[in-house]
Amino acid sequence: MIKNVVLIGAGNLATQLGVALYDIGINIIQVYSRTREAACALAGKVNASFTTDISAIEEHCDLYIVAVKDDVLAEVVKQVNFGRSLVVHTAGSLSMNILSAYAGNYGVFYPFQTFSKNKKVDFSRIPVCLEANTEENLRILEDFARMISYKVIRLDSEQRFILHIAAVFSCNFVNHLYALSECILHENNMGFELLYPLIQETTGKVMKLSPIEAQTGPSVRNDKKVIRKHLELLKDKPELQKIYQLISDSIYQLHHS
Amino acid sequence: MIKNVVLIGAGNLATQLGVALYDIGINIIQVYSRTREAACALAGKVNASFTTDISAIEEHCDLYIVAVKDDVLAEVVKQVNFGRSLVVHTAGSLSMNILSAYAGNYGVFYPFQTFSKNKKVDFSRIPVCLEANTEENLRILEDFARMISYKVIRLDSEQRFILHIAAVFSCNFVNHLYALSECILHENNMGFELLYPLIQETTGKVMKLSPIEAQTGPSVRNDKKVIRKHLELLKDKPELQKIYQLISDSIYQLHHS
Repeated sequence: MIKNVVLIGAGNLATQLGVALYDIGINIIQVYSRTREAACALAGKVNASFTTDISAIEEHCDLYIVAVKDDVLAEVVKQVNFGRSLVVHTAGSLSMNILSAYAGNYGVFYPFQTFSKNKKVDFSRIPVCLEANTEENLRILEDFARMISYKVIRLDSEQRFILHIAAVFSCNFVNHLYALSECILHENNMGFELLYPLIQETTGKVMKLSPIEAQTGPSVRNDKKVIRKHLELLKDKPELQKIYQLISDSIYQLHHS
Repeated sequence: MIKNVVLIGAGNLATQLGVALYDIGINIIQVYSRTREAACALAGKVNASFTTDISAIEEHCDLYIVAVKDDVLAEVVKQVNFGRSLVVHTAGSLSMNILSAYAGNYGVFYPFQTFSKNKKVDFSRIPVCLEANTEENLRILEDFARMISYKVIRLDSEQRFILHIAAVFSCNFVNHLYALSECILHENNMGFELLYPLIQETTGKVMKLSPIEAQTGPSVRNDKKVIRKHLELLKDKPELQKIYQLISDSIYQLHHS
């Protein structure tokens, strides 16, 4: 059973996860970050010591959670002596096996949410996706994850990559469509908050109906007149026109083929 | 002051609007629809008579609300004798002036929301966008709209077109990104409900931060490695690849130029 944890990394995810673990009584031994300020801030929140010296990371802890940027992960873990302890990374897009050269017991602990440093999230409702190098390690991680989330699932690396792509479409790309909407509204002296009720209704609907069933608008109706008019109104914005055309065609294809 | 109304059309918008008006005591005199079943269903909900005969539409009512498909609107209104009564259409993408040949008093009453026939919406929170051929008619419509919504605004036809485009991006296109996510998750034996917490967080965030500030993900970080991996994983889905590439580039441009 996991009782004490070292956090390697002090970004948005490490912060939110660290606080959630601390809140249920897990002993956070230490926080490591390259940045003194970040390490210190998170250590303060979870009553831990901190270090910016990677060779000073405590040994023999139950679990090391490595939550650093994807492109520095390998570089970081190779400098730590994990011994027989369990090590997990938290990245959607990295294979579990990136850890195999540096640890005997390893896995992935991927909380599937978008994190901001200063907006506390309710971890109990966040799906936690797990993978481990042995069935025993997987069980240990399951018991651990169930302490903070109701929704613990097993996913292999391939599925996790796909889930991460789905997140890019449903979170990052959706947010960008909101951003583009904001731009064109502002240019025409209207506020983005006009869209709030529509955004809420759209989001609420896909949690009741399947999004394929919930589709509305000119593209699914194949209302060529409205589509043509919209493309014409976007004539000074070739980038928006391209996005409009491509997604509109994609809607038509999904519903009429 | 408007006390009695004729509804021309019995689709999703006409149904939701009719019920909202009926609920606050407006007298719905009559419902017209080409389809007997639709006319009858809505008439039953708002305690009105109904007709499928366009020449039998009642004369001398205070307000005629024309909520039919964009491409049949002109054809419908030309067959009705509106006399001096006020006539409005409810379409985001049609100019107000489409009514000028058939009525002396006319305008637009555009409730800015996506409507389903059987999901009752709270009209009080829906922005109602108004336009009219005279200042007096605009005031009449404002008084009327304020009876059912807290958010009544004046928009000219040009602004309404832009707002409608923003709705296509933020509702129809967003929903399609959810639909694409659902498809790739199902193909890999995962359920769309895994995305619910992420979708809620993403939506909740843009009502606090501006969506431009709220942007996260590999594209805004310019994390080329993750982007390349995602594009590689989508290699059998050229349509998804194209959408990924285009929106990803657009995110980069918005944030780095």
